[in-house]
Amino acid sequence: MGELEKALEHIGRRFDPSKASAARTDFLYRLALLAHRHFAGKLQVLPSAWPVDARWLSVWYTPGVSAVSRAVRDDQDASFDLTGRGSRVAIATDSTRVLGDGDCTPPGGMGVMEGKALLMKILGGFDAVPLCIDDRDAEGRPVPSRMIEAVAALEPSFGAINLEDISQPACYSVLSALQRRLSIPVWHDDAQGTACVTLAGLLNALEVTGRKLDSAKIVLLGSGASNSTTARLLLSAGMDPSLLRIFDSGGPLCASRAGRYEGEGWEWHRQLCRITGSGSFGSPAEALSGADVLVAASRPGPGTVPRDWVSGMSKEAIVFSLANPVPEIYPDEALAAGAAVAATGRGDFPNQVNNALAFPGVLKGALLVRARGISDGMAVEAARALAAHAGSGGLSRHRILPEIDDRGVAPAVASAVAMKAVDEGLARRPMDAGGVESVTRRDVEAVQEACLALVASGSLGPVPGEMVDEALRLALEEAGQDSFQG
Amino acid sequence: MGELEKALEHIGRRFDPSKASAARTDFLYRLALLAHRHFAGKLQVLPSAWPVDARWLSVWYTPGVSAVSRAVRDDQDASFDLTGRGSRVAIATDSTRVLGDGDCTPPGGMGVMEGKALLMKILGGFDAVPLCIDDRDAEGRPVPSRMIEAVAALEPSFGAINLEDISQPACYSVLSALQRRLSIPVWHDDAQGTACVTLAGLLNALEVTGRKLDSAKIVLLGSGASNSTTARLLLSAGMDPSLLRIFDSGGPLCASRAGRYEGEGWEWHRQLCRITGSGSFGSPAEALSGADVLVAASRPGPGTVPRDWVSGMSKEAIVFSLANPVPEIYPDEALAAGAAVAATGRGDFPNQVNNALAFPGVLKGALLVRARGISDGMAVEAARALAAHAGSGGLSRHRILPEIDDRGVAPAVASAVAMKAVDEGLARRPMDAGGVESVTRRDVEAVQEACLALVASGSLGPVPGEMVDEALRLALEEAGQDSFQG
Repeated sequence: MGELEKALEHIGRRFDPSKASAARTDFLYRLALLAHRHFAGKLQVLPSAWPVDARWLSVWYTPGVSAVSRAVRDDQDASFDLTGRGSRVAIATDSTRVLGDGDCTPPGGMGVMEGKALLMKILGGFDAVPLCIDDRDAEGRPVPSRMIEAVAALEPSFGAINLEDISQPACYSVLSALQRRLSIPVWHDDAQGTACVTLAGLLNALEVTGRKLDSAKIVLLGSGASNSTTARLLLSAGMDPSLLRIFDSGGPLCASRAGRYEGEGWEWHRQLCRITGSGSFGSPAEALSGADVLVAASRPGPGTVPRDWVSGMSKEAIVFSLANPVPEIYPDEALAAGAAVAATGRGDFPNQVNNALAFPGVLKGALLVRARGISDGMAVEAARALAAHAGSGGLSRHRILPEIDDRGVAPAVASAVAMKAVDEGLARRPMDAGGVESVTRRDVEAVQEACLALVASGSLGPVPGEMVDEALRLALEEAGQDSFQG
Repeated sequence: MGELEKALEHIGRRFDPSKASAARTDFLYRLALLAHRHFAGKLQVLPSAWPVDARWLSVWYTPGVSAVSRAVRDDQDASFDLTGRGSRVAIATDSTRVLGDGDCTPPGGMGVMEGKALLMKILGGFDAVPLCIDDRDAEGRPVPSRMIEAVAALEPSFGAINLEDISQPACYSVLSALQRRLSIPVWHDDAQGTACVTLAGLLNALEVTGRKLDSAKIVLLGSGASNSTTARLLLSAGMDPSLLRIFDSGGPLCASRAGRYEGEGWEWHRQLCRITGSGSFGSPAEALSGADVLVAASRPGPGTVPRDWVSGMSKEAIVFSLANPVPEIYPDEALAAGAAVAATGRGDFPNQVNNALAFPGVLKGALLVRARGISDGMAVEAARALAAHAGSGGLSRHRILPEIDDRGVAPAVASAVAMKAVDEGLARRPMDAGGVESVTRRDVEAVQEACLALVASGSLGPVPGEMVDEALRLALEEAGQDSFQG
């Protein structure tokens, strides 16, 4: 067992469960600060070509590189093959809604973006550049058009863009403007990523409870980036809009609500108000009565979704409660209230809806075929492939999605996304499914091998054990001052 | 001997010298295309922190990373220590004047920027992100204000900015606007980098010919980014402006010429027209008569600088002819005409003025003390340190600058730059000279060790020998069709 696991177990032995959970989080915060400072971030740039000595610089730099400059000048698509562009993604945020912490000022999102870049490299086998973009005006207010211009200007350098942690409604208008304007995929992971994994989980949950998507009654609680996009993917995948009901803190999204969604960025919300069957119901409880599925992505719980809402649903209901860190209703409560399948955003319960199941494969597939964009159709195929991959490992009510460390996920997802891009005419460089799958597998393995070589030579890691001890000591002290149990 | 050296020698044996030179360049172009395509660029992103498994993601990503987001939100300077920002430089171009090839369209500069990033990592031990920025309007014309906005928006992500390959006069206004606006160093390598190495070389050339800077008569031929900046650094370093004479294709830069330099970006050129002693001379030949130094950075030769211009200079004159690929006057001609010291931009003659002697150390030193900017004073100190380092290896007329693979250069330059930043109050994190030197040395060695570990495990390189053979075959064929000698 590693130092980290030992420390987490030690906390579990010293405190009662709810106290232990808080102390564990505090420990992870303290360790993260120490470890991030120790390594000064968590990414490095290294050569991918070798040798690099004075002689070979005449190939990599002047005069040889001039042939590359001219080749790209004469055929700009050559930049995908002759430079790193074809396997390089920008992860761009304005840090206005950083994972769990809201507005963190422009540089504040870097830790999260670097983490995401790490996941892309380890799970998807491609390079990502974390970018915190300052789009604020003189008064410190974020200006969506500045974000759009800043990201658009970077198009020549990247094979795809991943938007991240942008507050709404800016996130909608930034995404759609960039998708219209750029000839590379633009993905908003908080929206499309979560929606994609949610759809995959739902497809399998419907399967294990013997339901069909086209006849399922589905209630979405919350109308933020992820749920509004989940609605769009559900409809793309064949759901009947009249059976879809969406509620947020203002009530059902129905014709009379459309006025709330005026202005730029809210186009899709206005449409949802028109096309869904939300208007027939006065409250979520009413809409859930007899419904098959609840997808809550709203306010952290507990208690955001009361037990009786679930017990009013149809037999063997499906309940996704995706708020972090505390789900709208804990899985054990949902199951006790009659649900057959419960999913959350957390890794310590079964059925985790984790974006990392989708974005590495989605972006890898799009990069490999040099996609000009990313369509809802591609996202739906990614969800289907993810669902099928989970199925191949054996479905159950407690296993509707694969594990995060399943190395087969990214190749399967990449291949499905790439094939759909080819079908839709979005691929600059068509490939076949087997090719995409094997290149993805090879690239992910190569990253693993490179890391292990660096670890073996002492060039990489590990986190010093004293650092784990120090974080543990501080976390125990803090928790102990409060109410010591051990 | 490596495959590459063998191939270059083979070409030398097959053709007469001038033909061989063209065939070698053609061979390097062909090999560059094959090798860049093979590796798909020449940079990769890898983790710098380890372990990275599902358990440790709770430190690198959620929930632990939240402590990093909040720490940076509460103290934005913490981003230099807790994320990669403190050792990450953006290399930004709009590809309007790509090394040797002019306007290459926005993605066209990537090969050169990646090459520069490679040099920064290998020689300076820090991470660089190559960025080709599209600053063109609907008609395809570059718009300096777009370049300024795009780079400014990236400030929160980087510890310094290196501008590169931007056409003039945009390069001047972009540099000065960004220097005013940002709280991190902004360096324009085509200007400050070349000027810094030129000044270093001149200091040693004056030394070996027994001259003093404050009494030297210096003629600059060409008033582009590098020579106009060389003028500024010479004056900062103590040169007498009345002894400085600048000519470009329009004649001497004197009061009557100031009208040519109206508008934004040309402020320094207008000032040069006022303060230098250029106006007393009608032609470069006149100005050179009795002058001690010529620095030509103008039109590629041969013949741009005729022999009699040099023979009219003072005894034991100093001649820098920096045009690429062909210097304004070849060194052997300059020496034959009476010069004592000749320098060029090329690696195949002694005394190469190579930017890579400066920028790795300059940027490393600025990064290490978290400099808020980069001043002319810092550039002058970099030049003095570079000159002194060359001196410590033994000066001669054929060795006024260090070799590019001298591992002592970057630590010496970094330390001088950092100390000047501390002196000028530009350092967020003051360090002492020994500290900067040893950290630079350690970081550069760590890069070398990491690369060797990757090479040993088969994760990195080499360029397949068949590729060298193929490029050689094609280059020989091409040259042979023309006039076969072998």
